[in-house]
Amino acid sequence: MSTFEKLSINTATIKKASLAEALDLSVAAGLKHIGLWRDKVAEVGLETAVEMVKASGLQVSSLCRGGFLTAAEPAGQAAALEDNKAAILEAKALGTTEIIMVVGGLPDFSVAPGAVDGGGESTAVEGGKDLVAARQRVADRLAELVPFALEHGVRLVLEPLHPMYAADRAVLSTLGQALDLAAPHPVEAVGVVVDTFHVWWDPSLQEQIARAGAEGRIASYQVCDFNLPIAADALLSRGFMGDGVIDFASIGAWVAEAGYDGVVEVEIFNEDIWALPYAEVVDTVKARYADLVEPHLALVRV
Amino acid sequence: MSTFEKLSINTATIKKASLAEALDLSVAAGLKHIGLWRDKVAEVGLETAVEMVKASGLQVSSLCRGGFLTAAEPAGQAAALEDNKAAILEAKALGTTEIIMVVGGLPDFSVAPGAVDGGGESTAVEGGKDLVAARQRVADRLAELVPFALEHGVRLVLEPLHPMYAADRAVLSTLGQALDLAAPHPVEAVGVVVDTFHVWWDPSLQEQIARAGAEGRIASYQVCDFNLPIAADALLSRGFMGDGVIDFASIGAWVAEAGYDGVVEVEIFNEDIWALPYAEVVDTVKARYADLVEPHLALVRV
Repeated sequence: MSTFEKLSINTATIKKASLAEALDLSVAAGLKHIGLWRDKVAEVGLETAVEMVKASGLQVSSLCRGGFLTAAEPAGQAAALEDNKAAILEAKALGTTEIIMVVGGLPDFSVAPGAVDGGGESTAVEGGKDLVAARQRVADRLAELVPFALEHGVRLVLEPLHPMYAADRAVLSTLGQALDLAAPHPVEAVGVVVDTFHVWWDPSLQEQIARAGAEGRIASYQVCDFNLPIAADALLSRGFMGDGVIDFASIGAWVAEAGYDGVVEVEIFNEDIWALPYAEVVDTVKARYADLVEPHLALVRV
Repeated sequence: MSTFEKLSINTATIKKASLAEALDLSVAAGLKHIGLWRDKVAEVGLETAVEMVKASGLQVSSLCRGGFLTAAEPAGQAAALEDNKAAILEAKALGTTEIIMVVGGLPDFSVAPGAVDGGGESTAVEGGKDLVAARQRVADRLAELVPFALEHGVRLVLEPLHPMYAADRAVLSTLGQALDLAAPHPVEAVGVVVDTFHVWWDPSLQEQIARAGAEGRIASYQVCDFNLPIAADALLSRGFMGDGVIDFASIGAWVAEAGYDGVVEVEIFNEDIWALPYAEVVDTVKARYADLVEPHLALVRV
């Protein structure tokens, strides 16, 4: 019987719930953690959000999200640094050491930082399709942010996104690339997240998860399924574990063998799931987690 | 002024045209090559197709497609070997040395070999989500096909597909993985295709294209764009070069530096393009090719 002590539900999974509702649901479900998006914090204001989280007794497993570091123009780069510093301070105030970084897409195509499900504006620039250059700018901005993150005890957690989002959300596409990007920086300052939806297809996944463990970089294990057919809005093709194509047994075993024994966060963007009663979503997440995810993490729990 | 001597239009780009129409269009456009799908050959029968191609004076740049090698059951594996042997013989009869291989998806999710745009049936099997095992079966079936391909002078051209198709079309997801798969076999028997739509996002693309050139494996360079937003049917998100996110200058230069000086094939699946007059499609392909693709291949043509 699972105690669900490592399970955390991200507010994006119950996107239409308020922060108060999300906290209450997690407490009622017997969970010890919660994953927060910044929009939920902004709805009530940081100070109030901090009080609400404290009163709930829950630990914030991660704050989502910083990033969007690919701007080619100085003004856009300065704005990105400011926004990420604000995110670092929010994470610290909320009592989490982990800020999830979605690094941004090509300048001609990247959505706006706040966009959860599509939309956002971008302006075409010279060289706006140059992927190599955009990736270099991510490395440059990351180096500028690391001292601030270290100073505040918050880790910048690089999230490789599925290659279908390489142009509009994240030029960071594989776990190996994330580890290369993290390599110059202290492990306290830069980590990586293994999100099954984004990395399940990668032929080098087992090797790179082992490397991430050996290098002390695994900051989070996020789980949800990859649904087929791909949703008409490709961002929303995430599903409950078991509803899609992902082999959670293999990936869970690799994560466990890599020594990760931290929180497992469930983050699902899916119109149908967003339309369900919140409690039903939480119940399904718990059942699928207990059935398909937790058993394969047993290696690190004995 | 381009001579279009290296340009080949794949029949999938003008999917609704008959074989006769596709041949006439290519000849009228001053092209020297054509890329064929097996469905166009089957419509008239192999013998007639061979005669029509000969009469046109065109060279078949590749035949699409063999593959679908991931079956877990002996009957499915035997059927796949038979179908691929037939494809090899068709390629030989049509005068091309290149048969494009789409290796197939996870047994639980893979579309049927004949499916061009969705559909297809599959049957759930034990371990049907085990990606590592499915990839091993591709290697096993490939080894069984190599002697037959060598005997008939046809090269099995491995096509890595975009990771968004890893479950339903090809568990082969990167150029590096394709080269690893090809490595045990003679270069005359197993090659790889660089299709911009499938590989543009890969952080190791420059390195792997250089490797493919050094190892003598580049059998084809296929170009089309990756359109955003992703089409509701994700298979159909291919576009005319210039309409999407891909940097053809960088990738073209890498292919040229790798020593490839062969045919460039344009293969686009797109409902809007399929609805256009065929001649308009051919004209647009030629214009975009001359503007965005050919100039970057100049390195190998001087």
